[in-house]
Amino acid sequence: MSYKKTDLLYEGKAKKVFAVQGHPDLLILEYKNSLTAFNAQKKGSFDDKGRINRTISDLIFQYLEKQGIATHRVEIMDDTHVVCKKLQMIMLEVVVRNRIAGSLAKKFGRPEGEKLPEPLVEFYYKSDELGDPFVSDDQALMLRTVQNRSELEELKKVGLQINHHLLQYFGKAKMDLIDFKIELGRDGNSALVLGDEISPDCCRLWDQATGEKMDKDRFRRDLGNVAESYNEVLARLQTAWGK
Amino acid sequence: MSYKKTDLLYEGKAKKVFAVQGHPDLLILEYKNSLTAFNAQKKGSFDDKGRINRTISDLIFQYLEKQGIATHRVEIMDDTHVVCKKLQMIMLEVVVRNRIAGSLAKKFGRPEGEKLPEPLVEFYYKSDELGDPFVSDDQALMLRTVQNRSELEELKKVGLQINHHLLQYFGKAKMDLIDFKIELGRDGNSALVLGDEISPDCCRLWDQATGEKMDKDRFRRDLGNVAESYNEVLARLQTAWGK
Repeated sequence: MSYKKTDLLYEGKAKKVFAVQGHPDLLILEYKNSLTAFNAQKKGSFDDKGRINRTISDLIFQYLEKQGIATHRVEIMDDTHVVCKKLQMIMLEVVVRNRIAGSLAKKFGRPEGEKLPEPLVEFYYKSDELGDPFVSDDQALMLRTVQNRSELEELKKVGLQINHHLLQYFGKAKMDLIDFKIELGRDGNSALVLGDEISPDCCRLWDQATGEKMDKDRFRRDLGNVAESYNEVLARLQTAWGK
Repeated sequence: MSYKKTDLLYEGKAKKVFAVQGHPDLLILEYKNSLTAFNAQKKGSFDDKGRINRTISDLIFQYLEKQGIATHRVEIMDDTHVVCKKLQMIMLEVVVRNRIAGSLAKKFGRPEGEKLPEPLVEFYYKSDELGDPFVSDDQALMLRTVQNRSELEELKKVGLQINHHLLQYFGKAKMDLIDFKIELGRDGNSALVLGDEISPDCCRLWDQATGEKMDKDRFRRDLGNVAESYNEVLARLQTAWGK
């Protein structure tokens, strides 16, 4: 089917969101080449990044769909554009951690890479203005990001299910999934659906053999070879799934 | 009964903790005249502060005991010393908020004084080294501060019960209780017991008539009349309870 983008509805740090002519229930996402960190205080970009992240995210969403996870995926338009379902987004970022890294390592003075006894789910309140603050369940309820406690439990459950499937997929591709961030929303039937993207921008991925970082930490921490690493993640995910 | 303090076990920001000769199940707390804020980066003191806080806290603990809340209170030794039960302290500070103020106002960009639809309970991990970071329930479990989720629920329940009683007592004394911090522990029978202190050092109290702050925010924010306010809190609590 052929879709045509109309109004720019929102421009984020790594994507633009457009309305779709004649389809009020759909959106078009355009993946940009830009890269930001520390709430957009650090900015960068590399050629082809939009296409790479679009391709990685689409592969992962296809994989998750096969495992029974509902996603907003509709179809690919071209290298940097995808058509997706318009969701009523939940104003929480859901972070799932398998090992301690990043802000958690700093907060608790623990070494990066320490394995957690079980995956930890965290919520962050989606607000660029406030810097996406970490919130407890009770704060998430106070902020009315969800209707009730069972909705929070549902978010945790889906986060852990997605983690389970991603661990398997990344494992086949010889990468350790340290942590990742997802965003979820509700479709017209109130079903919980995975939105946004899953890419090296929002996952920590370490090479299983060398421990080398293969994700946005290469940009955050000036480790170099950012484009090469994103390309390598894509190549491995394609090989692991025979695509 | 006569108690004698022996070894200094711990010196905190506002209190010293001593062992008690012949009583391994007891401790002696000495209230100091010092006052600190921002994880002890700001320091101050005023004459008689130890006695005032010791007296306020003892009044409040007596009041709570009458309402059926177990506290570590045993007896007063003198102006600045109290004897209390030795508890196995839980490594969480429990904060209960009735209105938005302080760090919560800053975190969510909300005005100080905004009433919460219902009291909010928060946990902070007790670690001077890490600056007592705010934690979610799942993080509190990950850190093994408690054994299981039902213990966290028990902490919340007791926090809310104490809030209920404090609202009544401070209300009689014409003060609005904005928020407060408590610390709890378990006694030899594994019962949950209120420890530490409740004083203007760890409560936000606003005059009901004028909205004037009567607590440590006067020191934190250089509002002046710190000693006068602490004295006024004590006088009002004594009058309200006919003591």
